[in-house]
Amino acid sequence: MQTLIRSVLALQNGTLQSVDVLLVDQHIRTVAPAGTIPVAPHQQVIPGEDRLLLPGFVNGHTHSSQVWQRGLIPQLPLELWLANVFDSTPRQLDQFYWGAVSTALDTLLSGGTGLIDHAYVIPGQELETVDALVRGYKAVGIRAVIAPLIQDLPFASGLPKGCLLPQSASPRSAADLLALMEAIIAEFHDPNNGIYIGVGPTGFHRCSDELLAGCGEISDRLNLCYHTHLLETRAQQRLAQERYGISAVQHLQNLGCLTPRTSLAHGVWISEADIALLASVGSTLVHNPVSNLRLGSGLAPVLKCLQAGLNVAIGCDGAASNDAQNMLEAIKLGTILHTVTDSDYENWLTPEQAVQMAAVGGAKAANLGDRTGTLTPGMDADLVLYNLDHPSMLPRTNPLQLLVLGRPTDVVEAAWVRGRQLVDQGQVLTVDTAAMHHHLRYQAFTAKASQVQHHPVEAHYRDVMLNR
Amino acid sequence: MQTLIRSVLALQNGTLQSVDVLLVDQHIRTVAPAGTIPVAPHQQVIPGEDRLLLPGFVNGHTHSSQVWQRGLIPQLPLELWLANVFDSTPRQLDQFYWGAVSTALDTLLSGGTGLIDHAYVIPGQELETVDALVRGYKAVGIRAVIAPLIQDLPFASGLPKGCLLPQSASPRSAADLLALMEAIIAEFHDPNNGIYIGVGPTGFHRCSDELLAGCGEISDRLNLCYHTHLLETRAQQRLAQERYGISAVQHLQNLGCLTPRTSLAHGVWISEADIALLASVGSTLVHNPVSNLRLGSGLAPVLKCLQAGLNVAIGCDGAASNDAQNMLEAIKLGTILHTVTDSDYENWLTPEQAVQMAAVGGAKAANLGDRTGTLTPGMDADLVLYNLDHPSMLPRTNPLQLLVLGRPTDVVEAAWVRGRQLVDQGQVLTVDTAAMHHHLRYQAFTAKASQVQHHPVEAHYRDVMLNR
Repeated sequence: MQTLIRSVLALQNGTLQSVDVLLVDQHIRTVAPAGTIPVAPHQQVIPGEDRLLLPGFVNGHTHSSQVWQRGLIPQLPLELWLANVFDSTPRQLDQFYWGAVSTALDTLLSGGTGLIDHAYVIPGQELETVDALVRGYKAVGIRAVIAPLIQDLPFASGLPKGCLLPQSASPRSAADLLALMEAIIAEFHDPNNGIYIGVGPTGFHRCSDELLAGCGEISDRLNLCYHTHLLETRAQQRLAQERYGISAVQHLQNLGCLTPRTSLAHGVWISEADIALLASVGSTLVHNPVSNLRLGSGLAPVLKCLQAGLNVAIGCDGAASNDAQNMLEAIKLGTILHTVTDSDYENWLTPEQAVQMAAVGGAKAANLGDRTGTLTPGMDADLVLYNLDHPSMLPRTNPLQLLVLGRPTDVVEAAWVRGRQLVDQGQVLTVDTAAMHHHLRYQAFTAKASQVQHHPVEAHYRDVMLNR
Repeated sequence: MQTLIRSVLALQNGTLQSVDVLLVDQHIRTVAPAGTIPVAPHQQVIPGEDRLLLPGFVNGHTHSSQVWQRGLIPQLPLELWLANVFDSTPRQLDQFYWGAVSTALDTLLSGGTGLIDHAYVIPGQELETVDALVRGYKAVGIRAVIAPLIQDLPFASGLPKGCLLPQSASPRSAADLLALMEAIIAEFHDPNNGIYIGVGPTGFHRCSDELLAGCGEISDRLNLCYHTHLLETRAQQRLAQERYGISAVQHLQNLGCLTPRTSLAHGVWISEADIALLASVGSTLVHNPVSNLRLGSGLAPVLKCLQAGLNVAIGCDGAASNDAQNMLEAIKLGTILHTVTDSDYENWLTPEQAVQMAAVGGAKAANLGDRTGTLTPGMDADLVLYNLDHPSMLPRTNPLQLLVLGRPTDVVEAAWVRGRQLVDQGQVLTVDTAAMHHHLRYQAFTAKASQVQHHPVEAHYRDVMLNR
């Protein structure tokens, strides 16, 4: 199968140039100046005039089943929001299937060709849950890293002075959870079909050292993405000091958890020393700007990270903390937000840097930097074609700036993942989107919005975090 | 003409309830519980099931001709960005017409029924420019306040220590400009057709006391909106100290410029004393969150304003500093952004507060609080009907939260301004949108993106604002 995209604008060495791009099977074969690749018989030829071709973004952090909680949870700090999220989490396997489909479609139609699903899995039905997610992602055809959320400490342990709270039921042991991960990996890790299992300990705040280190051992041995939450909130920063006496980042390093395969969601409260350490080991920070504001977590020090050479990716986070799953929205906010942290505009992010973070930065976050994230011969063809003639991309000024700083809508005209075309004329080719909308519209939901209220943990939170 | 919207969700006393709404001619006649208003002959009946009806938002601050500069100007601080904006400002009258049409359509299709256009006008063709804008807004049918930008100090005066810079050509005198405003008002102020002229001195930083006070006198005498930029940047704050020795807000108050008719764009750098003063005189702060981040201006103290009882509206600002003109985007960012300024989540904005700011807050900003901004019998029918069945509004959780915190797209199903239906089935009824897109697509632009570069003023800016 060969596809020739002719005379399309693409970023080459930091500037937009018109090029021809030849895809052969699942790979990018050739990128050459416009008009120089001859058309061969049996090629699909796609005219690229008034179009922009970018490597697909990777949504560096989401929780797909939260699609069902979109518009449900009020604006609250993470720790109180989480209590509400637990109470309204979906419990039916087909909700997980449709959650994966919906997340994949929102990603594709906002410029993404891959995602990291830090996936909630139903206790006691972990393999079935992952199976539902895998079926969803394979149905769409998107590239997906599924990192099941695992933890062996109770919820109250995630709060400073949490031991003062009544303990919830004890979760499974670290050994059990590591054995479970081995079983999930054996059954579902399927790189040849674009499905990857990652190890996804929830975060240091909910995990024992044994579990954190055990996940690191699996990641090392099997070359898997290690994906975890890190210092999302001030409460977590305080908890790390309380529990370890050193920074959480240093603690993870001491446990052997930080490698180039490691991606850390949020990092709002990392220090300059943390940044230097993360950069030195080649890990990735996944920035989730919409969620960080929605939950009042704060402003991640993204400019400092980039200046230190730390790889940064962009994520949407789950739909319960960002009631949209649109990569272009997250990229825009991640680009303009950090101006308030540095008055020298020469340090501000450009649209070019923003798309690089979302594409190649995201690919590295997913431990797939050798496969995807750049428009380079030999890489997999994970590509997105944007329609520059769409009203939301007018007038004809700087296409990349319009894409990143505008509010583009319905501009993804075509998309390929591993060489397979998943979107054509703005329509997803692989799944029945009407059926998905039908399910989102009519499927009974386990919790009503009106039932979501402040949680009993609130008094403790206010006492520890606000009234000191 | 009567229109009955039956069984539609609407905000009543802070909660969503199903109501019938009867519109008669240009007014809202009745709001009553669903199913209680009988259908009369010759009524247009609109089924409201799965729909949300809100008073239209007012885009509290924009510059319509910047539509032509969308995607053009790099991310720079206001003072340097402005220099680039001047250099690429459109000069043709039909660009102003289409700029108004485009701004009006973007506003309407993102939930707005009114706007304040702080309008650049071509020097020497001021009346012709306003005429083009009026024609554009009347063609669409949106409610528009046009406040022509006027100033009598040169650009360099807007910078701290600006007198060290070579002065640009001297603008017109205050007396000339005030006479010009009288002429514009006499010819174009047309409340009976939804077109209002406001007085729009650019800002204290570019205006003499004579001009600022003269505009106040006109606003008082003719009951016009007084609209001006205020303390958008740290540089302006420093300039005010340099020039007046007191806060710019106190200076405006001393000149008699602050009344309930006054709306002040940005106010990023106002103090708590400024906030108290503005609240006491009943003026309005127009918050432009996207633009404030795009230009690195900072975070306006919106929560403190609201706590002090100061009216706050939401604006998009012009398309050169917010490369989208989408009210729902500005409202979302304005809602989630301020969490980082106050760790107590009980002070965070709710979706209900956000839509109130954008609707009734915006109406007050436009000096139209007695006509529009609420769903109340006797008010003008400026209303927007949202489709809750659209995929971007699923699943069925909290409609207001989905609208404000999601990323709704193509959800405006119908809109009325002054009782006249301007949008039906998501399509604008009054103007040829294809013709507008054609103009945006093909009209020659006066400056190429590649010609926009850093301005000679940059060395001064860096010296004064960064290197001290």
